[in-house]
Parts: sequence; structure tokens; C-alpha cells
Amino acid sequence: MRVSIIGSGNVATHFAAAFKNAGHKIVQVYSRNPEHAALLAYHVKAEPIDNLEAISTETDIFVIAISDGQIDLVASVLSKHHKTMVHTSGATALATLTKYSELAGVFYPLQTLSKNREVDFLTVPLCIEGYNETITKQLLDLAQSVSNKVYLVNSEQRKILHLSAVFACNFPNYLYSVAEQLLKQSNLDFDIIRPLILETAQKVQQLLPNEAQTGPAARNDTVTMEAHLQLLAGNPVLENMYKLISQEIIKNQEANRILG
Amino acid sequence: MRVSIIGSGNVATHFAAAFKNAGHKIVQVYSRNPEHAALLAYHVKAEPIDNLEAISTETDIFVIAISDGQIDLVASVLSKHHKTMVHTSGATALATLTKYSELAGVFYPLQTLSKNREVDFLTVPLCIEGYNETITKQLLDLAQSVSNKVYLVNSEQRKILHLSAVFACNFPNYLYSVAEQLLKQSNLDFDIIRPLILETAQKVQQLLPNEAQTGPAARNDTVTMEAHLQLLAGNPVLENMYKLISQEIIKNQEANRILG
Repeated sequence: MRVSIIGSGNVATHFAAAFKNAGHKIVQVYSRNPEHAALLAYHVKAEPIDNLEAISTETDIFVIAISDGQIDLVASVLSKHHKTMVHTSGATALATLTKYSELAGVFYPLQTLSKNREVDFLTVPLCIEGYNETITKQLLDLAQSVSNKVYLVNSEQRKILHLSAVFACNFPNYLYSVAEQLLKQSNLDFDIIRPLILETAQKVQQLLPNEAQTGPAARNDTVTMEAHLQLLAGNPVLENMYKLISQEIIKNQEANRILG
Repeated sequence: MRVSIIGSGNVATHFAAAFKNAGHKIVQVYSRNPEHAALLAYHVKAEPIDNLEAISTETDIFVIAISDGQIDLVASVLSKHHKTMVHTSGATALATLTKYSELAGVFYPLQTLSKNREVDFLTVPLCIEGYNETITKQLLDLAQSVSNKVYLVNSEQRKILHLSAVFACNFPNYLYSVAEQLLKQSNLDFDIIRPLILETAQKVQQLLPNEAQTGPAARNDTVTMEAHLQLLAGNPVLENMYKLISQEIIKNQEANRILG
């Protein structure tokens, strides 16, 4: 397939490389910033452009991987070329594209992607939505050529998926930073807790989170929880967070016991 | 070394196996529950006992791996044998043992251990504290024979470490369960988000959490955060949690920008 990449950020960079590695031709890379366009285009042997008027129609699909707020404008410009266009955003409805063209879909990677960190793209879940069966088929073919984990996900589900990713990725990462700060104040290196963080995530690769839950709240150990709150005294935000999450763990475990 | 294991739970089971594998002799396994004692003792070729009066003095160290509330009583009984005794609790001070005997220390594994899940014990961080240099040396030798990650950690530091583990393990696991519940309500399988959970933990094996932070709060994307709060309307606990953690991520990112 001939693919053109609109954007040069984290998602654009990973998609361009994945498509290229799977044998597709990257026709052009667009970025408002000419240097960014040139750099990514160089890596995937594509033509760099920094003006959407220079977009080539010798392509099968436009992959719009830019910030959410820019998608609408870019779609309005690209739609006149009557090629399939997809966006890669978890938080943007398909309708943002379909108001300009029916040749529209979504290609949402459910992974935390950073330019300077390699991932095995075959393991990245790709969530696909096409405006009609023809588009869906075209997107499935493209998706399955780069990933072993392809899902059909509609716009309503994708919103929830994006919200779930905040709870499963962004918020846990914040809690890791709390642990890092607490350790630093006691002259302990973050290294000491890295194996625990990894094992916690590895456990739920097989188990469900409720089956993997451990700790003072899970066993309703009020003595330990009180001791922890004493240690957090003077930090009302963390105290509040500790209470809030612990109460929910206690409730969950109670519900699980009742259910069976 | 000759080791006796007091307890038959998750920590006792993993320690017994690790010591045995490293070539130490497990003399006895004690549990109040005779069947539990027999089962673990069988696996590590030790003598099972269910009465502390039957404890053998032909041992070098008692490893007390039981619930926090029982440690004091068991230590008072074991102390009369004048052997080194250690507990394995993150939340219990060394003083709980030293009030009975100076031959005392702590052997705290900073990992989430479940009986039915194997771990590579060489990667489990062991946090060691001895009452004096002789005990510390004995514990270091034993620890280094089963783990490549041995740390000297005093009772004050261990309290903070235990609290940090709640933020780095128990609370992230709870957030995974929130994601699972949200997905279930949209007919999406938890499988779809497992790679994201794993990569989030893998990222901070090299990076610090602040460097790995992504998501709407990290880029102060108020449009997406508002949309997420709309989706959570009707669930005041999750709404509250979303706001609280997002605000802290925004503050952290702001502080990082100012610091450079």
C-alpha cells in the first residue's frame, strides 16, 4: 500500500517506521516544521513536505497523526483528494472526518509511544473503525500487516478505551513518581522499587487485577493503614489520595468476597 | 546455613524455596495449621511442626514470615533458644524483636509474592537490617546467596519503603481494576489494555516516572480532561480521583518545566 503520513510526532514516527518495515511505500511526510518533516522522511525514504498544498494524490491513504485540535482543519483540506483518510486519536470521533468525506476511518494505537523508545510494533493493539465495510476492510489489511493485535472498536468504545488508558497508564505512572519522591526523601534510590513495579504489571498479564490485589487495604489491615497515614501527615493531597484509593480497594475486596 | 521457616504463607513459601535452591538446609517449617506445615515442609524436605514447643535448636536462623500481629508473640517464644531470628515484615520495626533478644534482624523482600506465581528470586530486592555488625554480616551472606539485589535498609527507611510499595504496586493495581471495569461496561476485553500496562511499567525501568509521563494531564489538555469527566459523571468517586490525580500531574509537569 502507498501511505502518506501527516505529522512527525511520536505516533507519526512509530507508524511511519512500522509501515515501512512491513513493506509499504511511504509517499510523503508532512509537518508544518520543515526540519521535522525532513528528518522523519529521511528515515522512511519519503518526500518531506511542509505545505499541505504540496500533498501528492499518488497515495492510497492519508494517516493523520497530529494533535487533536488540528485534525478537523487538516481533514477539510485533504478531503478534496478523495483518498482514504484516517486519524490516530483516541479522543476524536470518526464524525470529525466524515463530515468532509465518507472515505474515512480511525487507526488508534493503544500504547504509550515515545520517539526515543523502541517498541515491538507487532504487539501494539490497533483499534480500527471504518465508515463502511470497504474502508474497514482496507484498514484491517493495513493494520494486520503491522500488528498481531487488531481490534474493531467504534467511536463510543474508543472514548472509553482512551479514558481507561488514563487509569491504566498515566495515573499509575504518576503513582510511581509519588513512590520515587518518598524514597528520595529517605535517601533510597528508585532502583530498589523498579522490580516491584514491573512484577505488578506482569502479574495482570495473566490474572485479573482483582485477583492480583495485595497490600494493607486488600486485607483491611487498619493498623498498617493508620501508620501509613501518620507518615503522610503534612501532605494533605497524598493523605487524601491514600484514603480514597484504600477505601475503594476495601470495597472491591468486600464485593468480591460476597460475589464468590 | 541451617534455616527454619516460621510460617507457610506467600513469603514463607518463596523464602523456603529460594533458600533450598541456594543449597541451604531447611530444618523445620512451622505453621499453626498442620496441613500447611506438612505441604511446605514436603516441598523443601524439612520437618513440619505445628507447635512452637517442638522447634529444633539445631538451626542457625529462624525466619519469621507470618502476619505482622503475630510476630511479637512468636519472637518472645523463640528468643529463649538464643539463635538469630529475623522477621520479613515491611511495616514492623526491628525493635519488636530486640526487646526479646539482640540476635535479631530483618529480611524484607520488596516484591509482590503469591504462592501460585513463580518469581525469579535472584531479582527480588532484599532489604536487610541487623541489630549489630555480626548479625548484619550473617544476614548479608544469606541474602546474597539467594538474591542479586541486596540493600541495607534501617527501620525508618523500611517504613517509607513499605509505604512507597503501596503507591507503586497496590494502588496501580487498583487503577488497573478501574480500567477493567470501564472496558467491561463497553464490551471490551481487558486483554486490549494489557500491553499498555506492561509498557508503562517497562518504561520506568530505564526512565524516571516524570520523564515517562504522558496523557491529557501531562500536556494540560483541558478539552480531553473535560470529556473524560463527562464520561465519569454519575460515578463521583472516580470523578474525584480523576480530578485529584490530574491536578497533581499538572503541578508536577509545571514544576519540572520551571526546574529545567
